[in-house]
Amino acid sequence: MPAAIEFFFDFSSPYGYLASTRIEDIAARHGRTVNWHPVLLGAVFRITGGAPLVSVPLKGDYSTRDMARCARLLGVPFKLPGKFPIATQAAARLTVWAQQADTEAAKSLAGALYRAYFAEDRDISDPEVCAEVAVACGYERAQALAGLNDSAVKDRLRAEVDEAVARKVFGSPYFIVDGEPFWGADRLDHVERWLATGGW
Amino acid sequence: MPAAIEFFFDFSSPYGYLASTRIEDIAARHGRTVNWHPVLLGAVFRITGGAPLVSVPLKGDYSTRDMARCARLLGVPFKLPGKFPIATQAAARLTVWAQQADTEAAKSLAGALYRAYFAEDRDISDPEVCAEVAVACGYERAQALAGLNDSAVKDRLRAEVDEAVARKVFGSPYFIVDGEPFWGADRLDHVERWLATGGW
Repeated sequence: MPAAIEFFFDFSSPYGYLASTRIEDIAARHGRTVNWHPVLLGAVFRITGGAPLVSVPLKGDYSTRDMARCARLLGVPFKLPGKFPIATQAAARLTVWAQQADTEAAKSLAGALYRAYFAEDRDISDPEVCAEVAVACGYERAQALAGLNDSAVKDRLRAEVDEAVARKVFGSPYFIVDGEPFWGADRLDHVERWLATGGW
Repeated sequence: MPAAIEFFFDFSSPYGYLASTRIEDIAARHGRTVNWHPVLLGAVFRITGGAPLVSVPLKGDYSTRDMARCARLLGVPFKLPGKFPIATQAAARLTVWAQQADTEAAKSLAGALYRAYFAEDRDISDPEVCAEVAVACGYERAQALAGLNDSAVKDRLRAEVDEAVARKVFGSPYFIVDGEPFWGADRLDHVERWLATGGW
């Protein structure tokens, strides 16, 4: 069976959100599955000296425009949230918790969390908001809240972030396809071509 | 007559080099012309806090790989130069000088300077190397050297860089199409679609 595509993303990453709406279709067209890895880019930025895009002079204004333009092109609802960027521990932990029971259902939950934040301007840094999203996806509210506060889940997320850094993930979205790294929603066309051709 | 595409680039920018091999064809397909603007990103990075890509931890290694991969995909010769990045005053001034006589010929010269650096690993931070490239493009060696040392040419380049900053250019390549900004070689597909559709 061909290897899964590794998909790393931060819930505060607009381009991660855009990529999340495309990666499963791309993978399916080439008989692949996708492993979703929520990560915390704050930890990565401490190593790379990176900063959230929109806080960078000049580049920030451009990026805000580009995100919306890319979303319109893809037909994906998008609105830069009022509170941006945010801490994404709650959303990432909830996703990791959900993955323990069912990785496919956890993808739907992750997609719903992304939409809540980037299409509906709901503050998913708040565990209560995360729990509401989980309920709409069919999870039990109390279980979801207990899950994202569970110390084993926290440890699991920390291990995931450490592993991402070890694999040199420095941004979101970040993909690994048969060992080949691709960074950015604008590399999805290359991802698809790599899958189709086996590389160049 | 439809407005020209504004194309800003730094001679030390690998993605600027890649874009320079595509932009004229894209413009021609849509009945447009292109104004080439060599700029000095060092001046811009002092404002944005930016840094040359390859010097950023993790991102640097990835970028080196991505540049070569993009070049292979485009069928463009590419080799990360031994000395990288470089100061690009000499190449930019030579181009500005050549533009005064003939903007189309200056594009060929700019393309040759880019190829000298990114395909042949010749150090175009050296005015003598720039002059050699100019000679191969049909310019007189003494005139080219005098041109790139001319204080009026230096002033003109400074004014170009100031204007680029005023237009919020923060990276290379950077395009403005009918007032719409696009940053990065990986936005050329959007540039082409914008030209074809009038925007979205």
